[in-house]
Amino acid sequence: MNLEPGTQGFDWRSQCSIASCLDVMGDKWSLLIVRDLISHGTRTYSEFRESPEHVSTNILADRLRLLTALGIIERTNPEGVARNNAYRLTPSGLELRPALEELGRWSQKHLKQYHPEMVKSV
Amino acid sequence: MNLEPGTQGFDWRSQCSIASCLDVMGDKWSLLIVRDLISHGTRTYSEFRESPEHVSTNILADRLRLLTALGIIERTNPEGVARNNAYRLTPSGLELRPALEELGRWSQKHLKQYHPEMVKSV
Repeated sequence: MNLEPGTQGFDWRSQCSIASCLDVMGDKWSLLIVRDLISHGTRTYSEFRESPEHVSTNILADRLRLLTALGIIERTNPEGVARNNAYRLTPSGLELRPALEELGRWSQKHLKQYHPEMVKSV
Repeated sequence: MNLEPGTQGFDWRSQCSIASCLDVMGDKWSLLIVRDLISHGTRTYSEFRESPEHVSTNILADRLRLLTALGIIERTNPEGVARNNAYRLTPSGLELRPALEELGRWSQKHLKQYHPEMVKSV
């Protein structure tokens, strides 16, 4: 699948706005990168790697590239090498906060019975 | 990975409520099943199959089983065979609506530039 949504071959499954959101962020990692930037002050590649979910280097690099291509995050040192890059949310990325809050609220209410150690994060 | 969150071996990645939500629904399909039940009056296995994203039979069966195990949906004919089953949202599933609305709103605002045919769905 072409992972550059601004280009022609990107594989949108339908016209649905929910499906389109999941086309680009329907995975276990993309929204955690947004969470780290919103809540934990994470900025650099190595800081993302230290998050408790232990993202692998190849998934992290892939998701940072995709989120950058989508204009959700941006590099603060665009000329640097990947490992030294720092990232920040764009206005578009910041506007994901309400969705994250709703997902977190729902989890706290409905998944805590299965996972009692769960804590609020955004 | 053990896909029954009520049982001991389920692989929660961390204590974070966002991560926990993605542990169980961080994929391209689970929330589309919830969308279909909320917005499109979908109830049966064959109706889910007719949604424009063309879910495969094995993914659909897997996600219906997981959403049922999580108490997000329930079968309305619990004694029937899989292909004839009908499903409905539980109160827990209905409470996913605000999160879906937020994701759809964000898509409409920030992804439509890449996908101009996109339409609101929830």
